[in-house]
Amino acid sequence: MTPKKKGPRKVAVVMAGGRGTRFWPRSRGSRPKQFLAMVGEETLLNATVSRLAPSFLPEDIYIVTTEELAADTRRMLPQLPPANVLVEPEGRNTAPCLALALAIIERKTPDGVMVVLSADAWIGDKDLFLEDVDLAVSHARDKRDLVTFGIRPTYPETGYGYIETEGDGPVLGAIAFREKPQYETAVEYLESGRHFWNAGMFVWTLQDLRAELQAHCPEILAPLDEWMQAGADPAKLGKAYGRLPKLSIDYALMEKSDRVAVVPARFRWSDVGSWPAVVEFHEADGSGNMVQGDAILLESTNCAIFGGKRLIAGSGLEDLIIVDEADALLICRKDRAQDVKLIVDKLAALGRKDLL
Amino acid sequence: MTPKKKGPRKVAVVMAGGRGTRFWPRSRGSRPKQFLAMVGEETLLNATVSRLAPSFLPEDIYIVTTEELAADTRRMLPQLPPANVLVEPEGRNTAPCLALALAIIERKTPDGVMVVLSADAWIGDKDLFLEDVDLAVSHARDKRDLVTFGIRPTYPETGYGYIETEGDGPVLGAIAFREKPQYETAVEYLESGRHFWNAGMFVWTLQDLRAELQAHCPEILAPLDEWMQAGADPAKLGKAYGRLPKLSIDYALMEKSDRVAVVPARFRWSDVGSWPAVVEFHEADGSGNMVQGDAILLESTNCAIFGGKRLIAGSGLEDLIIVDEADALLICRKDRAQDVKLIVDKLAALGRKDLL
Repeated sequence: MTPKKKGPRKVAVVMAGGRGTRFWPRSRGSRPKQFLAMVGEETLLNATVSRLAPSFLPEDIYIVTTEELAADTRRMLPQLPPANVLVEPEGRNTAPCLALALAIIERKTPDGVMVVLSADAWIGDKDLFLEDVDLAVSHARDKRDLVTFGIRPTYPETGYGYIETEGDGPVLGAIAFREKPQYETAVEYLESGRHFWNAGMFVWTLQDLRAELQAHCPEILAPLDEWMQAGADPAKLGKAYGRLPKLSIDYALMEKSDRVAVVPARFRWSDVGSWPAVVEFHEADGSGNMVQGDAILLESTNCAIFGGKRLIAGSGLEDLIIVDEADALLICRKDRAQDVKLIVDKLAALGRKDLL
Repeated sequence: MTPKKKGPRKVAVVMAGGRGTRFWPRSRGSRPKQFLAMVGEETLLNATVSRLAPSFLPEDIYIVTTEELAADTRRMLPQLPPANVLVEPEGRNTAPCLALALAIIERKTPDGVMVVLSADAWIGDKDLFLEDVDLAVSHARDKRDLVTFGIRPTYPETGYGYIETEGDGPVLGAIAFREKPQYETAVEYLESGRHFWNAGMFVWTLQDLRAELQAHCPEILAPLDEWMQAGADPAKLGKAYGRLPKLSIDYALMEKSDRVAVVPARFRWSDVGSWPAVVEFHEADGSGNMVQGDAILLESTNCAIFGGKRLIAGSGLEDLIIVDEADALLICRKDRAQDVKLIVDKLAALGRKDLL
C-alpha cells in the first residue's frame, strides 16, 4: 500500500521510553513492555509502527526513547532511519519528551502535523484507526485545535484520567481534563456518556504545539531552543534537558489550553497495563485457565500461566497469574496484580539489580 | 563411639529401593526421596545409616536397592563395604527384598539378628531408638518372636496400616495387623490406645525369618535357595527373582504368623510421606510461611516454598506448596499434595521421561 501523499504532511511521534515494571518478571529495565509481544506475534513497539506504515512514510515516523533502549529500538525497527530514533538523556515525563521531538522535527517539517502515540498500547481495527487519525489530522490542520483521542469507557476504571466533552459528531469539544477518579465518580463518568478515557494520543500541528507550549509552559521550550541554536550538540543535550520541568503533557498543556478537541475513537484500544489485562486477550479453556507454554493443571480454575522453558504443574489453584522466567518466578493472585510494582520496588530496595 | 559387641550379632537391612514420586519435582527416578535431604543436612539414606553407626559394625549394615540406584547408593555410603549394597534385579515389594537379604546374609551371619529399616523415614531421639532396637533384638533372640516397632498414633491417619496389640510393658503381643482404615475406624484405633502404626521396621533372628517364611510363604524362599545352591551367579539372579511373588512382608508373613510381638517405639518417627509432612519439620514465620531459598512474599499466609536458584515472588497466596526445580515447577494447594502422584502419572502417560 502506497502511503497517501495528499493532505498535510503527517509525522508520527511514538513515545517509547517506558519501563513497564508492571510486567515483571518478563519486563526488565533493558527489556521493557514495548519490547515484548504481550499481545499477538509482534512486540508492542513493532505493532505500533506497523500500524502506521500504510499511512506514514518511514522517514516521518519518529520514536523517542532512552539512551539505554535506543540501540535495541533501532535494531527492532530497521525500516526507520536510525536518526529517527530520538534519545532522551533521561526520563522527565511526557512534556519534555514531546518538546524535544518538536524541537528536532520542526527543523525538517515545520508545517507538519504531529500524531503522538504510545509504543506500548494495543489498538484493534487498524483501518478505523488510520481513518480516525486522518480525521484528527484534518481537524488539527483546519481548526488549529489540539486534538486528543477519547476512548469511550466500558467500565468505571479508576486508573485513567478522563476528558469531559461537549457537543456531538465526529469531533467533540473538551470541557475539562479530569484526574484519575474515585470509583463513584468513575461510575458517574461512565453513565454520563460525555466522559472519555484519556489515552495519551494527540494530534496537533507543530506550529500550534509550539504556540500553545509558549503560552502555557514556555520554560519547556527555552532550554531546547537555546540548545538547537547553539548547534544541537548531542553532548550538550543532557544539560539542556535537565533544566526542563518534569511534567506530563496533560498537566503542562492539555489542561490549560482552551483549544482542545476530542475525536472519539472508533477503534478498540487497551493500554495493556497489567497481567490481567494481557489475560483478557487470550482464550481460556473450559475451566477458565489460560496457558502459554508447558503446563499441567489439575482441579484449577481461572488461572493464567505465562510459561517459560520449564514444565509448570499445578493442583487446586484458583485465580492465580503465574509468570515464569529463567531467573525469577511470579505467582500472584489476579486481584493483586498491582503488587508487581511493590515487588519491583522491594527488589530495587534490596539492590537486586540482576533481577530488574 | 565403639560399636557394642555384647549380645547377639546384629545386622541391619535398610530397604532403599523406593522412588518417592510424592516429592516430584525434587525427587526423580534417579534421585529418589532417600537421596534427598528432606529433613536436616543429611540425606534420609545417610541419616538412616548414621543413626545405626554407634551400635552396628559397618560390615553388618546392608542396603537393598535397585540396579539403577546401586552405584549412587555406594557412592553416598563410602563407609560401608560396596558388597553390602545388595541389588534387587527389580522391585517386587518388600517380601522378596527381605528374602534376598536373608539368603545372602545368612551365609555370613547365620545366627544373626536382623533389624529391618526403611531408608526414607525420619527418626528423632537417636539414643532411644538404639535402646529400643536393642530391646527388640533381645526379645527376638530370647523369645524367638518376629518383632515389629509400633508407633503410637497421634492423629487418625488413614494412610498407614495399624497393629492391634494386647498386654502392656515394653513388649506387647500382636493380635492383628489392620489394613489402612476408613476415617471413623482410624478414630476408634486412636482412641483404643491399643493400636499402633505399622512403620515397616522389624527385628527377627535370621533363623526365625527363614522358619516363618518356610511356614507361611515357602514359594518366596525356594527360587532364591536354588540360586544360592547353584553358585549365586549374579547374572542368574534376575531369573530367580522374577519367580518370587510380589508381596509385602506384612501380607506374606506378619499377618499370618502367630509369633509376632510389638515394641512400642519411644523414639519419634515420621515417614516423611508428602510435602506437607516435610513442611512440619521447618519453622514458619509469623504469617505461617516457610521459605527455603530466595523469595519475596507479600500478603501471603501458610505457604511453603522449596526454592531453587531463582527468585520466587508471590502476592496474595494462601496454603500453597511451591517447589522449584531447574526443569519443573510445582504449585500445589497443601490439601491436594497427594495430587503430585497424579501429576507424575500424567507425565508418564505423556512420555515425559525427561521429567521423571
